[in-house]
Amino acid sequence: MIYLTRRATFSASHYYWNESWTPEKNQQVFGRCSNRNGHGHNYTLEVTVAGEPDPTTGFVVDLKGLKAIIEEKVLAAWDHRHLNLEVPEFAASKRVPTTENMAISAWERLQPAIEASHGARLTCVRIYETPEIFAEYRGGK
Amino acid sequence: MIYLTRRATFSASHYYWNESWTPEKNQQVFGRCSNRNGHGHNYTLEVTVAGEPDPTTGFVVDLKGLKAIIEEKVLAAWDHRHLNLEVPEFAASKRVPTTENMAISAWERLQPAIEASHGARLTCVRIYETPEIFAEYRGGK
Amino acid sequence: MIYLTRRATFSASHYYWNESWTPEKNQQVFGRCSNRNGHGHNYTLEVTVAGEPDPTTGFVVDLKGLKAIIEEKVLAAWDHRHLNLEVPEFAASKRVPTTENMAISAWERLQPAIEASHGARLTCVRIYETPEIFAEYRGGK
Amino acid sequence: MIYLTRRATFSASHYYWNESWTPEKNQQVFGRCSNRNGHGHNYTLEVTVAGEPDPTTGFVVDLKGLKAIIEEKVLAAWDHRHLNLEVPEFAASKRVPTTENMAISAWERLQPAIEASHGARLTCVRIYETPEIFAEYRGGK
Amino acid sequence: MIYLTRRATFSASHYYWNESWTPEKNQQVFGRCSNRNGHGHNYTLEVTVAGEPDPTTGFVVDLKGLKAIIEEKVLAAWDHRHLNLEVPEFAASKRVPTTENMAISAWERLQPAIEASHGARLTCVRIYETPEIFAEYRGGK
Amino acid sequence: MIYLTRRATFSASHYYWNESWTPEKNQQVFGRCSNRNGHGHNYTLEVTVAGEPDPTTGFVVDLKGLKAIIEEKVLAAWDHRHLNLEVPEFAASKRVPTTENMAISAWERLQPAIEASHGARLTCVRIYETPEIFAEYRGGK
Repeated sequence: MIYLTRRATFSASHYYWNESWTPEKNQQVFGRCSNRNGHGHNYTLEVTVAGEPDPTTGFVVDLKGLKAIIEEKVLAAWDHRHLNLEVPEFAASKRVPTTENMAISAWERLQPAIEASHGARLTCVRIYETPEIFAEYRGGK
Repeated sequence: MIYLTRRATFSASHYYWNESWTPEKNQQVFGRCSNRNGHGHNYTLEVTVAGEPDPTTGFVVDLKGLKAIIEEKVLAAWDHRHLNLEVPEFAASKRVPTTENMAISAWERLQPAIEASHGARLTCVRIYETPEIFAEYRGGK
Repeated sequence: MIYLTRRATFSASHYYWNESWTPEKNQQVFGRCSNRNGHGHNYTLEVTVAGEPDPTTGFVVDLKGLKAIIEEKVLAAWDHRHLNLEVPEFAASKRVPTTENMAISAWERLQPAIEASHGARLTCVRIYETPEIFAEYRGGK
Repeated sequence: MIYLTRRATFSASHYYWNESWTPEKNQQVFGRCSNRNGHGHNYTLEVTVAGEPDPTTGFVVDLKGLKAIIEEKVLAAWDHRHLNLEVPEFAASKRVPTTENMAISAWERLQPAIEASHGARLTCVRIYETPEIFAEYRGGK
Repeated sequence: MIYLTRRATFSASHYYWNESWTPEKNQQVFGRCSNRNGHGHNYTLEVTVAGEPDPTTGFVVDLKGLKAIIEEKVLAAWDHRHLNLEVPEFAASKRVPTTENMAISAWERLQPAIEASHGARLTCVRIYETPEIFAEYRGGK
Repeated sequence: MIYLTRRATFSASHYYWNESWTPEKNQQVFGRCSNRNGHGHNYTLEVTVAGEPDPTTGFVVDLKGLKAIIEEKVLAAWDHRHLNLEVPEFAASKRVPTTENMAISAWERLQPAIEASHGARLTCVRIYETPEIFAEYRGGK
């Protein structure tokens, strides 16, 4: 079993806000991240798939195909976007666009397409908000 | 003469927009950067000062003092902010918040304080929008 | 389950020495690391906690709180210190301050505070001595 | 149990080619990687071993010894080499020298020597072809 | 005056060889770089242009246009290529494809197109062969 | 004219102390860097030489030769050493081992050997104490 990882980067804006709280509570919990004008990051996304290398190609997965899925499913929706205002799963305060929730959402966006088109299995999505902070989702509970 | 550089990072949102143009022209020139919801970056700022090391300290400049100036003059105004909406020099389309203009603005914010409090001279401000794109201003014309 | 990681850096001095050995044997086993004047590193510490994101905040753990624990429990004791001379678990040759033992000590320092104040569970401590060498401790045996 | 990792770098050439296919099929599947003049990379290899730190040294494994094994078993054979033309396991199209297959080959080259000379167990080999693409092999199936 | 830099990466093979020398002399001077099967690198290219930001755009140069020039003039010719065998200025031993000569060649490839299509002036080309070795050409003598 | 740079790394301990000051003044000016047990860093040294590439080799300078000079003149004296206790130019408080003074000392150590053995000219020495702080010396006043 080989674990193959492809990295991609994107830039987006977000803020942290819970609609059911007062502005004071939002400020207290989320600090300067609660500024509703938004601030942004250069995010790094790492997508890991696992499988046996195909003996005719040496590939666990065709990296050009994996890159195309990442671009279509995640980057087209998130890159150069305001996550709270333009991305369905974070809009209307459904999910606060924290790094944790972004890892889960990226998984949900990627998994069906990866399973449909490749023999490989998605095993990990990691998102870096900055080089100092990252979240990883490995599926399941 | 020693050139001493201190690096700092901040996260901000921006978009590119020229008020005197039509939306179509803004879209044509600025592409996806013209999305007025904004998008963001982890910026890296490098501030370089030059001078002779003080023989009693070995310092060209006290780095704690330089860091405090960077935090007070640039980070307090730009970090976790939307540059177009909250930062005077970029508000109301005065200056498009490109990496180029951010380097000039950072210089203008830093130079008086550095010259007032240190023997050292500001010689360069470099800003990275991403690891792939950076702009440098060295003062003058 | 989300795995959330916070990175921190610190600078410290150390040397490798086993009191029960002759200087010759220390030199033979530890090489130039046995220089008792000490040498130092910029260490990078990565602390990973796991849990479910809180539905009201999107947080597995409040990162400001986690950062405060890392600073209080590890950085206050290790940063700008000589590990062999000033840090109890490495003093008097109790434990040689190798990257391996530093990972175990960081875990022991962090775990009680993380478990006391957060719903999240500490799952991994990784320490880089240089970008080329790092050790990871995941608890247990 | 501590997981200790040593990183090494090397530069090599390779191309992707399946002898049983037509040139057209090779071009279609492998794209510009099928250029038989070869192209190259600065590879990064990470070797992880696991074990208990020895109480007299604080070492899971002597890093100088581990480095010597990596240099003898992998770098001497791969560094500044053309993988398809000069490295037995990839020559004559036995295995396409993809990052996936290189991770498996590095494991096969390293494991016997590590097990023979150290108490530690090899648990992971990771190879970066570029900072954006890496493959990991953890042994077994 | 602002100095704006765009970074790009490419992968290529090369070897060092002087046709007028014996194989022994080539081996003596160039060491393992004289292996005529070639070896390769992930090169990083940094292209710096200087000019005044346009007051209507805030741009010294349109980065999409600069990126297109870099891709057309350098990457199309060098990426995934064997420099000695496929690139005119290095073929037939005209110029040894050292990092130094690659910086000069990149300048010669880029300068006419940058001067023709932009108000900005090319001021520096830097090429990293590895993170440890880089060469810079600033034009002229 | 080509500017060629070679990077090297080393680990050392140091502290900041001025013998002519009281302990209180040392603490006030140098803060936690005045801890006389010492602390340490992974330093990165960049050495830049300038010259015309030799038409027979494509080299401004033989990098193996330059690396040997860096190792003999700087790394042999500084790596895995305590700068205040073991390095003549910093011993006995002659020069405080700040990044600024280390850049000057590295220049003084390197320049005679580089000028004696190479056609190239030393133009810059840059030292990073951390990725956030670096000093550059270009010779002269």
